[in-house]
Amino acid sequence: MTFKFELIKECKDTGARVGKLFTPHGIIETPVFMPVGTQATVKTLSPEELETLGAQIILSNTYHLYLRPGHELIKQAGGLHKFMNWNKPILTDSGGFQVFSLGDLRTVKEDGVEFRSHIDGSKHFFTPEKVIEIENALGADIIMAFDECVPYPCDYEYARKALKRTTRWAERCKTAHQREDQALFGIIQGSAYQELRELSAKEITSLDFPGYAIGGLSVGEPKEIMYEVLEYTTPLMPKEKPRYLMGVGSPDNVVEGIMRGIDMFDCVLPTRIARNGTVMTKRGKLVVRNAGYAKDLRPLDPECSCYTCQNYSRAYIRHLLKANEIFGLRLTSIHNLHFLIALVKEIRESILENRFLEFREEFYEHYGEI
Amino acid sequence: MTFKFELIKECKDTGARVGKLFTPHGIIETPVFMPVGTQATVKTLSPEELETLGAQIILSNTYHLYLRPGHELIKQAGGLHKFMNWNKPILTDSGGFQVFSLGDLRTVKEDGVEFRSHIDGSKHFFTPEKVIEIENALGADIIMAFDECVPYPCDYEYARKALKRTTRWAERCKTAHQREDQALFGIIQGSAYQELRELSAKEITSLDFPGYAIGGLSVGEPKEIMYEVLEYTTPLMPKEKPRYLMGVGSPDNVVEGIMRGIDMFDCVLPTRIARNGTVMTKRGKLVVRNAGYAKDLRPLDPECSCYTCQNYSRAYIRHLLKANEIFGLRLTSIHNLHFLIALVKEIRESILENRFLEFREEFYEHYGEI
Repeated sequence: MTFKFELIKECKDTGARVGKLFTPHGIIETPVFMPVGTQATVKTLSPEELETLGAQIILSNTYHLYLRPGHELIKQAGGLHKFMNWNKPILTDSGGFQVFSLGDLRTVKEDGVEFRSHIDGSKHFFTPEKVIEIENALGADIIMAFDECVPYPCDYEYARKALKRTTRWAERCKTAHQREDQALFGIIQGSAYQELRELSAKEITSLDFPGYAIGGLSVGEPKEIMYEVLEYTTPLMPKEKPRYLMGVGSPDNVVEGIMRGIDMFDCVLPTRIARNGTVMTKRGKLVVRNAGYAKDLRPLDPECSCYTCQNYSRAYIRHLLKANEIFGLRLTSIHNLHFLIALVKEIRESILENRFLEFREEFYEHYGEI
Repeated sequence: MTFKFELIKECKDTGARVGKLFTPHGIIETPVFMPVGTQATVKTLSPEELETLGAQIILSNTYHLYLRPGHELIKQAGGLHKFMNWNKPILTDSGGFQVFSLGDLRTVKEDGVEFRSHIDGSKHFFTPEKVIEIENALGADIIMAFDECVPYPCDYEYARKALKRTTRWAERCKTAHQREDQALFGIIQGSAYQELRELSAKEITSLDFPGYAIGGLSVGEPKEIMYEVLEYTTPLMPKEKPRYLMGVGSPDNVVEGIMRGIDMFDCVLPTRIARNGTVMTKRGKLVVRNAGYAKDLRPLDPECSCYTCQNYSRAYIRHLLKANEIFGLRLTSIHNLHFLIALVKEIRESILENRFLEFREEFYEHYGEI
């Protein structure tokens, strides 16, 4: 199956939209939340559990898999899908965000980025060509171009240089990309400067990728800034291509992102806070680790239909977390991923049924009450 | 359903036997290996996974659950089965082994044992009556009498005193025990002294429990000593009652135990070594964490039918373990429990088909080759 995006419905009041993304490993209904499996595993969960949760596509990280266990081993194993036993779509990021996050451990040059491994300090060099070689070896359905991601805040001149380099690297990625069964997405940068986002959107979309991402958000800026950037950026992205907001996944950010025309999200947040004993509910975050839940025999969220809420109490889950029992981390991870995936599904339905704004209003009615 | 044991078949050459144990939460085919769920969870696994693995009964620990989260909470939750979402049989130990393992943190008196919690140092007192009260609250199908477990080696006089006290405590447990839906098992002590094992067996069996355990083995003695003790002890235990060898679960110990007339086993070994990256195979232990398996794309055990071996390679599992990914611990735990449960099932079939000794011979042909 070749890669294709079908726009099914657009909200008449907002930028929200519903679509279908066709990939070699299956069809993805958008908007979609993609659980993150950094090291070829979505932390604590099995592929079967992810499927039961309704995960349609997962994300994995080029930087991490390149360092450990190595992309050549994964290629030898028949690719990432086979290596990790996940037969649905996968997206790999390019490692751009990760290597730039290394701070002192990396040096940016025109040709690429020199960096030291966070695992053993060994030296490596990522060029756009190298990253594409790695992503081709991993074999995900969607792969991301190598970009320069800047922190927030970032001065104008630096942000401009980084976005111009991101464009040149995107061109090199496109030239280097070989596999027709993998869709290469371009990434729009430009920090929180409207002029720069416009410039980046113009340059990147002119390269005609099958999909586009907005990078450089959720890097420390206030959420109002993120929403503002989305408001002026998504209209510059072609309607007929999927739009992916990288690294975003709190419930309210997802609602707001969809309203502004985003189709795809990924974030470690649901699984990370789960492992710290915090779960997402429609009323906000519930810290089940807290002593107040020690004797609470209710489910995490009485309105939730997930495996965890159907079978276990807050008291049991808290006990597992306090006793350092891994099954507790599984139960909270299941709940949080279910929550986000179900939320996005509900939003999708509300768009199809012309009631997205009503849904959004209801969502905020109780959100944050806890 | 009342508690009942049905002896189905006895091996004509050895003490091995096949039976059925009827409990309120289901029928257990013996011999049986019981996975250990110390803190109301079999480490890393879900109840559904345990069921898929063929676990018929699990063990949980009175000492741990009393300290955390507390037996009263579990009683309030509707008992241990409901609290942990496991609807098949459960056995709870009495905490005897645990409190005696506390060393300096405990003092044995005639009335009971005073000890300090390993969690917060708080002071507690276990009497036979208190332990039965806790076990009644937890609500397992099979509960164990409170015994005094001695280390190995142990001088004769101390071992004698401990077994005499174990008898007096067994009587008190029997008197205190209230629930007809729970079967209370007596425990035979006596260290590695034949005279003392005979004395204990005589005293404990005279109390007419519905089942009997052999305690005080697998506490550091050479395995030849364990086998010797079994050889002279099991013939002193009534044929028509189930026999449980506590804390034993290496593959060869299980084969030898069954040959000497044991029906039930429990042990943390399979799940503990799994979490250290060691898996059980018919050729012995394979340390999948080792660098030699980094690029090995074969399953842990090419002959194994478990979920792990059907879907994942040694290279993938090693990668997960090296990257501290919890899913790796799940995969090795699944494999090891599958291995032991399947081994015991194979032995059961071999007894039913009059070929237990042949099975044993085949078992040893390759065992230990790795």
